[in-house]
Amino acid sequence: MSTIADRVAIDLGERSYSIAIGSGLLADPATYDGLPGARSALIVSNTTVAPLYAERLRTALAGRYAQIHEVQLSDGEEHKNWQTLQQIFDTLLAQECDRKTVLYALGGGVIGDMTGFAAACYMRGVPFVQVPTTLLAQVDSSVGGKTAINHPLGKNMIGAFYQPRLVVCDLATLDTLPARELAAGLAEVIKYGPIADMALFAWLEQNMGALLARERGALAHAVKRSCEIKAAVVGADEREAGLRAILNFGHTFGHAIEAGMGYGVWLHGEGVAAGMVMAAELSRRLGLVDAAFVERLTRLIARAGLPTRGPVLDAQDNAGRYLELMRVDKKAEGGEIRFVLIDGPGKAIMRAAPDALVREVIDACCAP
Amino acid sequence: MSTIADRVAIDLGERSYSIAIGSGLLADPATYDGLPGARSALIVSNTTVAPLYAERLRTALAGRYAQIHEVQLSDGEEHKNWQTLQQIFDTLLAQECDRKTVLYALGGGVIGDMTGFAAACYMRGVPFVQVPTTLLAQVDSSVGGKTAINHPLGKNMIGAFYQPRLVVCDLATLDTLPARELAAGLAEVIKYGPIADMALFAWLEQNMGALLARERGALAHAVKRSCEIKAAVVGADEREAGLRAILNFGHTFGHAIEAGMGYGVWLHGEGVAAGMVMAAELSRRLGLVDAAFVERLTRLIARAGLPTRGPVLDAQDNAGRYLELMRVDKKAEGGEIRFVLIDGPGKAIMRAAPDALVREVIDACCAP
Repeated sequence: MSTIADRVAIDLGERSYSIAIGSGLLADPATYDGLPGARSALIVSNTTVAPLYAERLRTALAGRYAQIHEVQLSDGEEHKNWQTLQQIFDTLLAQECDRKTVLYALGGGVIGDMTGFAAACYMRGVPFVQVPTTLLAQVDSSVGGKTAINHPLGKNMIGAFYQPRLVVCDLATLDTLPARELAAGLAEVIKYGPIADMALFAWLEQNMGALLARERGALAHAVKRSCEIKAAVVGADEREAGLRAILNFGHTFGHAIEAGMGYGVWLHGEGVAAGMVMAAELSRRLGLVDAAFVERLTRLIARAGLPTRGPVLDAQDNAGRYLELMRVDKKAEGGEIRFVLIDGPGKAIMRAAPDALVREVIDACCAP
Repeated sequence: MSTIADRVAIDLGERSYSIAIGSGLLADPATYDGLPGARSALIVSNTTVAPLYAERLRTALAGRYAQIHEVQLSDGEEHKNWQTLQQIFDTLLAQECDRKTVLYALGGGVIGDMTGFAAACYMRGVPFVQVPTTLLAQVDSSVGGKTAINHPLGKNMIGAFYQPRLVVCDLATLDTLPARELAAGLAEVIKYGPIADMALFAWLEQNMGALLARERGALAHAVKRSCEIKAAVVGADEREAGLRAILNFGHTFGHAIEAGMGYGVWLHGEGVAAGMVMAAELSRRLGLVDAAFVERLTRLIARAGLPTRGPVLDAQDNAGRYLELMRVDKKAEGGEIRFVLIDGPGKAIMRAAPDALVREVIDACCAP
């Protein structure tokens, strides 16, 4: 019924799980073999994704649970908050779900983050399965166990490290993904090149056309390599003590863009795209990479249909506004911003930078 | 300046910590030696405890952090909810607290549970220290890493397992504890007897007067033995897979009482006290203990000034209401209630019981 093109094993001791990558996996009951038994499951989705895939998932799970409940959340980053999370808890309790109930996150990163956080907190922890239906969620949130909701004063400020029992990356679900969201997902794929694997970067330069045309083979390779690279980094640093922070390349500037524009105006991947150019430019001004590398990265980002320049967040003092937003970022410590920089293509480092230099980069890299 | 009467080591691998037990510890800067360094700390307390002890704690910590922030929550179980928790997050973010900021929980179990849960979730985890100022918190929540908030449909339904870095049991803080709360704490001390240690039970029968008179030596012994017993149980079962559940002796009925009366009407320890009598009576009707044991337990509970009978929650169908409330308890699985029963004094077991028998026990054990 379905083809599992690949499986990526995430080795985290007793919290190990696997990522299944292929076409048609979501609707195949065999995909879910090996999960812990339970009386009930809850499918958490949103009003956009549920009409497309919830019934298929429910049918695939029908032989597995006596009761399958469902909750549909509002779609969008602006709903990634406590009020929406509360709807999951309300449903779990109203349906008398117990400690073994399995939560299924059917949707993109927002659904995955909220469902994972709900699973981490409900009765202090129940199992959950991710069924990411966006490229971004497949290549990013399927590895790492990061779950969270936003706070009015900062993105992902309230959350937990909590691992899923299984991730199901069904490439067929990407057929219904809007082009803008496909591109946003490609931003995270591109990211893995400069920080860890320039062979992937070169492959992306060759295959961007196939990815934008949603060719399954190309998508499978991009998802698999992204998960493998992220797994290697996360495996060495599950709780983000050090190394893992390199995965945030482009994210310090990117989060400022998302927060400054208001969550949901720029997609996460769009902020990361422009943020990567800014971080690369900061790396160049610190003498870590040459102009040709910045140019090459900028070109690939543009080919993916992504923004290469940041928005103006404040007409009076744009750089000041970026700095202010970056200082409240989780990665800042004692008010000092730690940037992920490229120390030669394929290698990332963390370091601080003088405010004056960061201001120059922001001035140079923002529209118009 | 202070006397550390005892230290109980909680051995949980890389999450190990110790419980310091003594008089005057709270105000002694040396108490906090060995904690991870940070730029800032946040003291979380409530409007009852803060006026008594917050300034002393702040002074003791002054040499340790550049900034010490404070937040005072409303006092009481009825405020153990998301809205109150949000005040902690609001303060942390407004003060630009970072990933190393240490949270200090200064107060009883509600403050400890909420501060611990906030620490578990803020930026996906920051360190926290418990400074329990009630006997209940000193003997119960100082071991086990359980943190949570309540949901309108159930107590402690949303939370995390998250360990403190240090617990400071300052016996001097018990001087200001209302008598009713001292008694409520004694309920949890008494609990350790039937489930694990009848020598402690016999000691309590001898020393109840000294405890009620708040003699420091007696209190130190009660706190230490309670922490040791709980640590032994939790050490064998950190995430409550099985054994640990015996610590919930009296809690299944007790939670139903608390929820049925409305949180805060009966104190947690009062619910547990009446709940222990009910669980002991259920054990007797199942042939596990004799009437003399139930009588002995009931007498000790009464001597501590605690209720030995449950309240009537529903004039029409009281037993039905208890059963309904117990079925939504976290310990229920698939709607089946798992009771902690006494299988001979000093030994607890988990098992289900026929509804009809549970109804008989409720009818026999509730006022009037």
